[in-house]
Amino acid sequence: MLNIALLGAGRIGQVHARSISANPDCTLVAVTDVAAEAAHNLAARFQAKVRSVDDILADAAIDAVLIATSTDTHSDLIERATAAGKAVLCEKPVDLALERALACQAKVARTGKPVMIGFNRRFDPNFAALKAAVDSGEIGKAELLAITSFDPAPPPVSYIKVSGGLFRDMMIHDFDIACWIMGGAPSKVTATASSLVDSEIGAAGDVDTAVVTLSWADGRIAVVKNSRRAGYGYDQRIELLGSEGLLSAKNELENTIEKITREGTRSAKPVYFFLERYMRAYEAEWAAFVHAIKTSTPVPVTLADGIAALACAEAATRSVRTGETVALRPEMPGGL
Amino acid sequence: MLNIALLGAGRIGQVHARSISANPDCTLVAVTDVAAEAAHNLAARFQAKVRSVDDILADAAIDAVLIATSTDTHSDLIERATAAGKAVLCEKPVDLALERALACQAKVARTGKPVMIGFNRRFDPNFAALKAAVDSGEIGKAELLAITSFDPAPPPVSYIKVSGGLFRDMMIHDFDIACWIMGGAPSKVTATASSLVDSEIGAAGDVDTAVVTLSWADGRIAVVKNSRRAGYGYDQRIELLGSEGLLSAKNELENTIEKITREGTRSAKPVYFFLERYMRAYEAEWAAFVHAIKTSTPVPVTLADGIAALACAEAATRSVRTGETVALRPEMPGGL
Amino acid sequence: MLNIALLGAGRIGQVHARSISANPDCTLVAVTDVAAEAAHNLAARFQAKVRSVDDILADAAIDAVLIATSTDTHSDLIERATAAGKAVLCEKPVDLALERALACQAKVARTGKPVMIGFNRRFDPNFAALKAAVDSGEIGKAELLAITSFDPAPPPVSYIKVSGGLFRDMMIHDFDIACWIMGGAPSKVTATASSLVDSEIGAAGDVDTAVVTLSWADGRIAVVKNSRRAGYGYDQRIELLGSEGLLSAKNELENTIEKITREGTRSAKPVYFFLERYMRAYEAEWAAFVHAIKTSTPVPVTLADGIAALACAEAATRSVRTGETVALRPEMPGGL
Amino acid sequence: MLNIALLGAGRIGQVHARSISANPDCTLVAVTDVAAEAAHNLAARFQAKVRSVDDILADAAIDAVLIATSTDTHSDLIERATAAGKAVLCEKPVDLALERALACQAKVARTGKPVMIGFNRRFDPNFAALKAAVDSGEIGKAELLAITSFDPAPPPVSYIKVSGGLFRDMMIHDFDIACWIMGGAPSKVTATASSLVDSEIGAAGDVDTAVVTLSWADGRIAVVKNSRRAGYGYDQRIELLGSEGLLSAKNELENTIEKITREGTRSAKPVYFFLERYMRAYEAEWAAFVHAIKTSTPVPVTLADGIAALACAEAATRSVRTGETVALRPEMPGGL
Repeated sequence: MLNIALLGAGRIGQVHARSISANPDCTLVAVTDVAAEAAHNLAARFQAKVRSVDDILADAAIDAVLIATSTDTHSDLIERATAAGKAVLCEKPVDLALERALACQAKVARTGKPVMIGFNRRFDPNFAALKAAVDSGEIGKAELLAITSFDPAPPPVSYIKVSGGLFRDMMIHDFDIACWIMGGAPSKVTATASSLVDSEIGAAGDVDTAVVTLSWADGRIAVVKNSRRAGYGYDQRIELLGSEGLLSAKNELENTIEKITREGTRSAKPVYFFLERYMRAYEAEWAAFVHAIKTSTPVPVTLADGIAALACAEAATRSVRTGETVALRPEMPGGL
Repeated sequence: MLNIALLGAGRIGQVHARSISANPDCTLVAVTDVAAEAAHNLAARFQAKVRSVDDILADAAIDAVLIATSTDTHSDLIERATAAGKAVLCEKPVDLALERALACQAKVARTGKPVMIGFNRRFDPNFAALKAAVDSGEIGKAELLAITSFDPAPPPVSYIKVSGGLFRDMMIHDFDIACWIMGGAPSKVTATASSLVDSEIGAAGDVDTAVVTLSWADGRIAVVKNSRRAGYGYDQRIELLGSEGLLSAKNELENTIEKITREGTRSAKPVYFFLERYMRAYEAEWAAFVHAIKTSTPVPVTLADGIAALACAEAATRSVRTGETVALRPEMPGGL
Repeated sequence: MLNIALLGAGRIGQVHARSISANPDCTLVAVTDVAAEAAHNLAARFQAKVRSVDDILADAAIDAVLIATSTDTHSDLIERATAAGKAVLCEKPVDLALERALACQAKVARTGKPVMIGFNRRFDPNFAALKAAVDSGEIGKAELLAITSFDPAPPPVSYIKVSGGLFRDMMIHDFDIACWIMGGAPSKVTATASSLVDSEIGAAGDVDTAVVTLSWADGRIAVVKNSRRAGYGYDQRIELLGSEGLLSAKNELENTIEKITREGTRSAKPVYFFLERYMRAYEAEWAAFVHAIKTSTPVPVTLADGIAALACAEAATRSVRTGETVALRPEMPGGL
Repeated sequence: MLNIALLGAGRIGQVHARSISANPDCTLVAVTDVAAEAAHNLAARFQAKVRSVDDILADAAIDAVLIATSTDTHSDLIERATAAGKAVLCEKPVDLALERALACQAKVARTGKPVMIGFNRRFDPNFAALKAAVDSGEIGKAELLAITSFDPAPPPVSYIKVSGGLFRDMMIHDFDIACWIMGGAPSKVTATASSLVDSEIGAAGDVDTAVVTLSWADGRIAVVKNSRRAGYGYDQRIELLGSEGLLSAKNELENTIEKITREGTRSAKPVYFFLERYMRAYEAEWAAFVHAIKTSTPVPVTLADGIAALACAEAATRSVRTGETVALRPEMPGGL
């Protein structure tokens, strides 16, 4: 039975608290948050204690921490927690700055402690089934990957301003999916982006609609489409053309009802947002982390994976600015 | 907070135990089963006590009982529990014999205690959405209902022999759905049935494949198809033609993956059986019962509903034997 | 090159004229119709001559006739044409009266000339693909067949009055499909029917909504649903449960457009009526007839097939009246 | 009644000959081809005469010519035919060289004769329905367009070598669709491409797999995916995200059959290639041309449209070479 501390009691922290408490192999023992009330509410609901970060890290009885704090604290907390001997599951992104993330990676390496990055979508049953089918050769050799990832509605501009921008905040999930399915980071990145959804997003220096093309040294290509506003729900699809066929993961819909009238056929729309779509993924993600820690096996999403996705985001940001294709640094884990 | 006792710790009892323990407005305090080990295992898992039926019914602190014992005990236990002042949720069918169920209904009426019958499918999100769409007039006036209900594989013949037969054991769910959607019991029933799946089922005097047509006094028609063996999973669909369109509830599938190759397009099959398909329905069913008891409002599925479905089953059984259309007794709640 | 005469220049006659003229192995040389103007218009359009029935049948240069006249003339014309040595393709039904059709069959038998009945749906590419899949054992042994067949809107009551009723006029197509897929006529028929769509249809003694269950001596079952008014288009589906799976033929839709908005997903409805749905089937039907005549091989839909479907229609009519299951005469080609 | 001459009796010429002969408002009177046998076969089949180009252009009785010769002859023939007073429908692309196409456009302008470019896909019923829905505002303002366009199998390398390359030969259709739906040419083009399918295509200096991103001055974005080898058929889909929803045109499938077994659900794959998918589009394209000529109204696809698509192809070719985003010349009809 692992003792877990949760750092961060905000929206995503609450999601993780549910996964932790639902897992039979661990116990949520401590919670911390800069917002005292949030910490107390969550602690009360899950029968945990509110403690300080220092206190948590000093407690030898705590085996692992889940970092769900604001992004600017991720690298520091990863470094401190691993130095204190804890296993870590940290929300994405590792950091907004690639350099800082690389420095964090170097420090963590010296501790030998496992750090897993919270790319929850890898644990979605549909995406996981697609990945398994690809890996078992069901459509031959992968050639052309297309990821569609639209949010239902844009976040407040106040959030946009501290988010690191669409590529680091939103498309980073898709970069990870692309690297995961293709088996490593791409060698080149080209991006086109605009602010079409909300002019305030553009005024804040960010984009809300983007297409990014990734290519690998062996010629394989991936393209990611993002929009901050689909309106109809959370549109999360993957489509991979291989040498022997096309494999795709469609959306999950609200229900299976269909109505046919003179006006046509009416059916359900995709489920609204990430809580509806990915709750099972969060649970499976946590279970995978707990399993890796318990069995001393590698975590399935590494800090290096988090850095590869961040490198793609940085390259896409640069490509939009310069209009040029950007090569990823050779030390990225691409070039399969 | 309602205190609940669970009578019956078999497969379906375990399903209900999960719903009871997941519901924030009630506590599972007692469990009983003729199989002592099953009772103890379930009690241990859900922190309840193993007690006798007599003991449970005598305990004034217990507000409601959930009856999930074998069918031949249902009527007796409903009568005893309501006489003891308990609210009751009883698994379907009420009884194998219509006469016995009617006698039970009369006794219960004198106690004034609420009895809900466990027709879980009414609480399936898809079927509930279809019913809501019908009731709000989305396809005009209902005319022709078609229910497809196939199990993945037949039960053992030992079960068949005590089940009361396909109409009372399996199609009773579909009779309830038909009565629920059409708003009352039919006036006539015609059945055609065979043993095609398993010759031992035929040897035991039962059928495994059946089509039953129900008609209402106003001319509306419903048809139910049952098979004990679809092979590919649990096929549970409803389709209603109304004066202004067609409304249907499709199956839930295992995932959203699609693969297109030279051989065609491959996608998922329906989820395998009732646990995969109806777990959310069982939870919603129990929540509806708890809500009704807490607010002293009528339970959404009554003992009369259970009797109407049983009357359909009895009529279908007779129709297969005689080759004639069977009229339901006038006291059934049909003739809308 | 076969010389063809078309008897009947009404709506369905015009459909056949197009198939005849599109077929490279035959020429439409003569047309007749009791309505002189219709005959002349069609003849002009397809460069044929208007001639009398007597004249056509006396012309040794005419190889085959396509009978698309009113139903009450079918038997007579089949008898006269075959007696005159012509091959015949006759629209369904053979006759409104089973006795008359049987007498016709006896006369035709003495001429040895081929008579094909126009059950066009057998030549629909979807239904033909389903039949081929069944016959090649793709879902094991057939067990439970379900046919849905809804017209978009009821015909005028004046048509209803001379139609022979829903079972002989409309469901006869579905009876043929059932016999074709199951490999012979059923042994028993049970019907339930109402007039829900148009009270004038009921006043004329006919029904507009019906469910008919057919069963074969070996226990296999088929159920047919008919409505004269789906509203949204022509709903033509087949679904067959076999011992190893479910095979279905869905509707053809107006287009492949899908729109997802806050209101849900909107897609196309089925194509409107038989001309949109079955034009390719009519062409293939005619090609199959021409092929059989040219190669002196059996026609794929025989007069016996037309009689089997008619026997089902007669049995269904009787079953509605009596409330009893009706056994088909033993001489029907069932009992596989 | 328009008299039509067909220049080119190859594969696509034969497709057009069928459309011409099926159209009631025109007659195919003359055919020419450098391959005498092809010309004679086609002429015999459609009762036209084989004549030389000079002869055809000199014949005042010929109203219009359809140019379906090899691409390198298009500009010359357009110029000569319009100079001779003929209306022209010319297959895509206008020319392999943008400069040559622009010179052709200038010459044609002086004749005042109508020239339509054969972008058949605009006349596909599905794509046309999507365009109509966009234009009527069904999903608000267009924002992000995605076109998937995969051929079933690559052409021989001998064809590739004279084709002008994937962008001018294959993706030019998609460029036209993008310009058509978005209402004008884009301002910038970025391309990523590889040879993954056939190494001989790479050795010939061409690519077989490509992703091209187009952007408009107002920030709207389109992305096109091409592969020369889908294997499973012709994959032709459009998907447009607008401010109020998502509109998509799916593939047409071989049939509507679905089979569910233990192995999952099996359904049809897309129709195999452009003849199966776009035959109706070719007919509608020709009907639109004939209608424009008869009514002296503008043709629906202009020479300028052909040049805009060619400009995109040229920009994409350059972008792959340089790794840079390429701006289209300001004289292109973009910048809505």
